[in-house]
Amino acid sequence: MPYHPLLARIGVRLPIFQAPMAGTSTPAMAAAVSDAGGLGAIGVAAESTEGATRLIRATQALTSRPINVNLFCHRPAVPDAAVEAAWIARLKPQFDSFSATPPTQLREIYQSFRSNAAMTAMLLETRPAIVSFHFGLPEEDQLRALRQAGIILFGSATSLVEAQALAVAGLDAVVAQGYEAGGHRGVFDYAAPDDRLGTLSLVRLLARNLPLPLIAAGGIMDGAGIAAVLKLGAAAAQMGTAFVGCPESAADQGYRVALASEAAWHTTMTRAISGRPARCLANRFTKMAQSVPDSAIPDYPITYDLGKALNAAAKAKGEFGFGPQWAGQGAPLSRPMPAADLVKLLAAELAAA
Amino acid sequence: MPYHPLLARIGVRLPIFQAPMAGTSTPAMAAAVSDAGGLGAIGVAAESTEGATRLIRATQALTSRPINVNLFCHRPAVPDAAVEAAWIARLKPQFDSFSATPPTQLREIYQSFRSNAAMTAMLLETRPAIVSFHFGLPEEDQLRALRQAGIILFGSATSLVEAQALAVAGLDAVVAQGYEAGGHRGVFDYAAPDDRLGTLSLVRLLARNLPLPLIAAGGIMDGAGIAAVLKLGAAAAQMGTAFVGCPESAADQGYRVALASEAAWHTTMTRAISGRPARCLANRFTKMAQSVPDSAIPDYPITYDLGKALNAAAKAKGEFGFGPQWAGQGAPLSRPMPAADLVKLLAAELAAA
Repeated sequence: MPYHPLLARIGVRLPIFQAPMAGTSTPAMAAAVSDAGGLGAIGVAAESTEGATRLIRATQALTSRPINVNLFCHRPAVPDAAVEAAWIARLKPQFDSFSATPPTQLREIYQSFRSNAAMTAMLLETRPAIVSFHFGLPEEDQLRALRQAGIILFGSATSLVEAQALAVAGLDAVVAQGYEAGGHRGVFDYAAPDDRLGTLSLVRLLARNLPLPLIAAGGIMDGAGIAAVLKLGAAAAQMGTAFVGCPESAADQGYRVALASEAAWHTTMTRAISGRPARCLANRFTKMAQSVPDSAIPDYPITYDLGKALNAAAKAKGEFGFGPQWAGQGAPLSRPMPAADLVKLLAAELAAA
Repeated sequence: MPYHPLLARIGVRLPIFQAPMAGTSTPAMAAAVSDAGGLGAIGVAAESTEGATRLIRATQALTSRPINVNLFCHRPAVPDAAVEAAWIARLKPQFDSFSATPPTQLREIYQSFRSNAAMTAMLLETRPAIVSFHFGLPEEDQLRALRQAGIILFGSATSLVEAQALAVAGLDAVVAQGYEAGGHRGVFDYAAPDDRLGTLSLVRLLARNLPLPLIAAGGIMDGAGIAAVLKLGAAAAQMGTAFVGCPESAADQGYRVALASEAAWHTTMTRAISGRPARCLANRFTKMAQSVPDSAIPDYPITYDLGKALNAAAKAKGEFGFGPQWAGQGAPLSRPMPAADLVKLLAAELAAA
């Protein structure tokens, strides 16, 4: 079966795309994947413009192949001092148990790419082959500038309505993110009803109702999974969890150990770590969050300021169970090995499938 | 690609299995599917032994091909008069709005197949080629008797732990039911934590960890979906929602109209209709249930007694929005046509995929 023309257009040989994974992907990982014939990616959503520039330049220094740079396009946070103070108070016993003091105030730690002129100018300067968006779309003038610079644009969708918005905005491909997927769920508005479409259903619904190339994400861990989503009509598979265990990943030891353990069999969607729904290995943080009413959780990414502080306090005492151990439902199928070897293995499995 | 040996063993030509769907499938549907080369099925969980006998005999009168007879193996209901009275009181305003009176007491309307000697004897007498179980397993002596009669046994699983229990019990194949699937979720214990595994993840996890043939269920609506789950390692695809719109289905007009409308784009998992989690088109019943705490809902199938009464009261006034309009996430891809034509179309799409 010949691959989808999207691959030739972006200059990638294999329908194997590494998910951007802000905080976990690295220039070494992205370069290894792209050099092996897949599409490597780095997530720069947690970075300042300077930090993002460094990451992109570092990746470009390692590979001349196309890479995908991912940005978050969330609505800027709506602060609520009362909710935030109550959230700090609620988590204070956890800090106490690690002999730590929570921050007295929470900050909006990530700036949205939406209307971010400096970041846009930096992308026009560094010119990654692909720029992709999560949580929605940037402004029209940003899209126009990126497109005029010859950059190919992907957007993430969890429903047909979101995918149609990406199509109207003129994007080149849609990352169809199923409910199985690890990490942040790409819903544009996390407060809106969510049909929680699984990867299989979502990809098929979009394939039958949208004229754009699809990149399937969520639960794909091996060549059989890639072959399956190609049959559903996807141009490629995007895989995150599969790469978390690679030596090139920035995952800490607690995250790696959990992913390689029985803990991988249980993931859960939680808003308590960052403020947005994200799929995580069930751990001490997600357990604590089970009894928390949604209305008690501050807006994204304000919540993440406290989540990161709690994780740091816990890690300082050797407890890794409060980390953002993002993982998809296929986590037990993780195979830790160098990223280039993993791409080769996936390609061989795909050819055999 | 040659099909899995399971198909030859059960004497079926195509990897297209119609889901049993108690209350919606009919002898005419099952016979049409089996005659077209798939595996037709009838769900007899809502029937007395006499009713089940009639359904099986009626199907056997229409086809000499293998059929699958499905039974529910839930734990018998635990009544709680206070919860049930409060549940009736909570739904009374809905009955009032249809000028109807709710029942004063709720009954356990379905007997479990577990320990049901009369039903077991009837199956030994009627000898369908396949008997399948939902919500768990019957007793060992029941399994032994059915197996000794040469009946092939399927069980339903939503997790590896459940699938392993089916393997230990010696079943012949596992229906891997993903979170996308319409109708009753097959979890053995609905009060236990549920990882909500999507079809893609579940099938792949089981394929890599279980020595039994798999039948994938959940979100599969067309030949591309069937081809995808075969790539994941399934022996066959089981499809329910795809057959609801067939003329042979017992679905009422309200259900058919909803399934063919924009309403198909939104399904939700609810326990409020029957007492067990089941995926339904979002309708007036599921909307009402959104604000209901789980603890307010009686045990299965006691809840269903009131759910059916409310639906009957609403339908008597022309309101179909309280029906158990079970549907999977692929519902918008439904194509109403005679069951035999649908099997032919699916087979052609699969061959082309």
